[in-house]
Amino acid sequence: MFIGFSEAETFLRNCRDVVIITHQSPDGDCIGAGFGLKDILAEIGIRSRVVCSDPFPTRYDFMTCTGAGEEFEPKTVIAVDIADEKLMGRYQEIYGGKVNLCIDHHISNKNYAERTLLRGHATAACEVIYDLAKYMGVTITPHCATCLYTGIATDSGCFKYDCTTPRAHEIAAEMKRCYDINFARINRYMFDVKSLGRLKLEAKVVELLEERLDGKLAILAVTQEMMEQLGIAMEELEGFAPLTIQLENTEVGILMREREDGVFKCSFRSADSINVSAICQTLGGGGHAKAAGCQLSGDMETIKDTLTEAVRKALEE
Amino acid sequence: MFIGFSEAETFLRNCRDVVIITHQSPDGDCIGAGFGLKDILAEIGIRSRVVCSDPFPTRYDFMTCTGAGEEFEPKTVIAVDIADEKLMGRYQEIYGGKVNLCIDHHISNKNYAERTLLRGHATAACEVIYDLAKYMGVTITPHCATCLYTGIATDSGCFKYDCTTPRAHEIAAEMKRCYDINFARINRYMFDVKSLGRLKLEAKVVELLEERLDGKLAILAVTQEMMEQLGIAMEELEGFAPLTIQLENTEVGILMREREDGVFKCSFRSADSINVSAICQTLGGGGHAKAAGCQLSGDMETIKDTLTEAVRKALEE
Repeated sequence: MFIGFSEAETFLRNCRDVVIITHQSPDGDCIGAGFGLKDILAEIGIRSRVVCSDPFPTRYDFMTCTGAGEEFEPKTVIAVDIADEKLMGRYQEIYGGKVNLCIDHHISNKNYAERTLLRGHATAACEVIYDLAKYMGVTITPHCATCLYTGIATDSGCFKYDCTTPRAHEIAAEMKRCYDINFARINRYMFDVKSLGRLKLEAKVVELLEERLDGKLAILAVTQEMMEQLGIAMEELEGFAPLTIQLENTEVGILMREREDGVFKCSFRSADSINVSAICQTLGGGGHAKAAGCQLSGDMETIKDTLTEAVRKALEE
Repeated sequence: MFIGFSEAETFLRNCRDVVIITHQSPDGDCIGAGFGLKDILAEIGIRSRVVCSDPFPTRYDFMTCTGAGEEFEPKTVIAVDIADEKLMGRYQEIYGGKVNLCIDHHISNKNYAERTLLRGHATAACEVIYDLAKYMGVTITPHCATCLYTGIATDSGCFKYDCTTPRAHEIAAEMKRCYDINFARINRYMFDVKSLGRLKLEAKVVELLEERLDGKLAILAVTQEMMEQLGIAMEELEGFAPLTIQLENTEVGILMREREDGVFKCSFRSADSINVSAICQTLGGGGHAKAAGCQLSGDMETIKDTLTEAVRKALEE
């Protein structure tokens, strides 16, 4: 059942002992949403705990520093930024079919929860949570603002992508007027700072970036072997996908990352008008119009051909 | 004489045959300010022409496409985004000492014009011009909005840097609500799209990036010879300076670009708290706290040592 702010407020004010689930391969938005919501619940006297199937990457320590929360037997289950129960990872076994409230911004949300507060055109789950907190009149602490800003900034590519709503800018303006937070430092750590290893891997990218379909498609495939040679941890590859649409004529870029089990995680980016979510759906995946993904197993070159064919069809439509 | 919006409006409504001067080595903000102001003047029936000491790079064609303006004998001289007459380049000879109005956001503005509308804390000259147009009640055309957005976006690193004001976000929100402009495409061309040559040069950067002062200073020196070998045009090096503060511990980054006459143009960036404008002032240059520059001639290694010593002093203060 889809609900509005009013019902979401009523639900939140009357819930207790909340477990907040963030999606696997956690990013800035789900971590910001999880820890931001935890702060908001604390403000109204409700204890909560943030969980994730994967460890939170250390680069998000400035958000997770408040701690995931004490152990208790949950009475309420809330999922944030999770469009599909599958994305709960190992928590699907425990909480699958038991989510009381889902707060999300993915238009592809599967409506799997008892109640879903969905704003399908919001930049980020954090944008929805900020507006909900304002609606409820709950004080947003500086840490909470830091979390919610980070989610909006990371999901919008620092206000760069098409998904950046006017509201995202308005929230950033409100936060900059209200809080003495070093936003530039957050942006620097989220978008600019790299390890020397990462810089070296990016340098290798230039040689690996493969143009297909007259340059309209660019594929970048990174294998486990390459990562080992360079001493790069998997979490450092987060944020590589946008590099695939750097060349002027590229319409679709795909980052293929080999996982430890040999399966390739394929992250699609659209430079402008091609809907990559639609392409990924034909390959068993999904996502947003400009950023989507799927997973394929098999030989790397065969997968590249499969992807090329799927993109060729989309370009012809 | 520093003036406010009211006096600036009176001046603009009563001027005619305007030459708008943008600074040498033109960037998104001065081009946006120049062509945006030209649109605003056209709305109130005043003809103008935009001039620059250097050619406008082709990547800004979407702003300059309206044309620089017809030839006429100027009766009014307006400088935009120019803190110091020296930055007019070859136009200093013609218009030096004759600027009737300067519209700027550099706190270091030398107050060289008859009247100066200075908003020293604005993100961009385009932010000042947008607010002036709103104050005047002049219609902002989609092309004008495109120009002003681009100036704000480019000077703020797409809302990433410390100089991004709440007002910059509010203007972006207003524009996104009012205009059907493909902002994401502008951002893509301003921040993401690169030539293959540029990508290769960036790859070379990793090997060239030299850490000094325990990694607190990073220097990246690019010589004429390197550029020739890679077939890179000087204008493609614009935007390289932020690459110098990519590593986590870097406090100050310097991009040294050898000009054709052998002089090195040194662009400083501060990662967080060091004021690089103050450092550059000790070397005959200037700029903003987080982005400044100076020019030094001599042997490359000697210049590196001079720069290192200046940064060492600043770090110790």
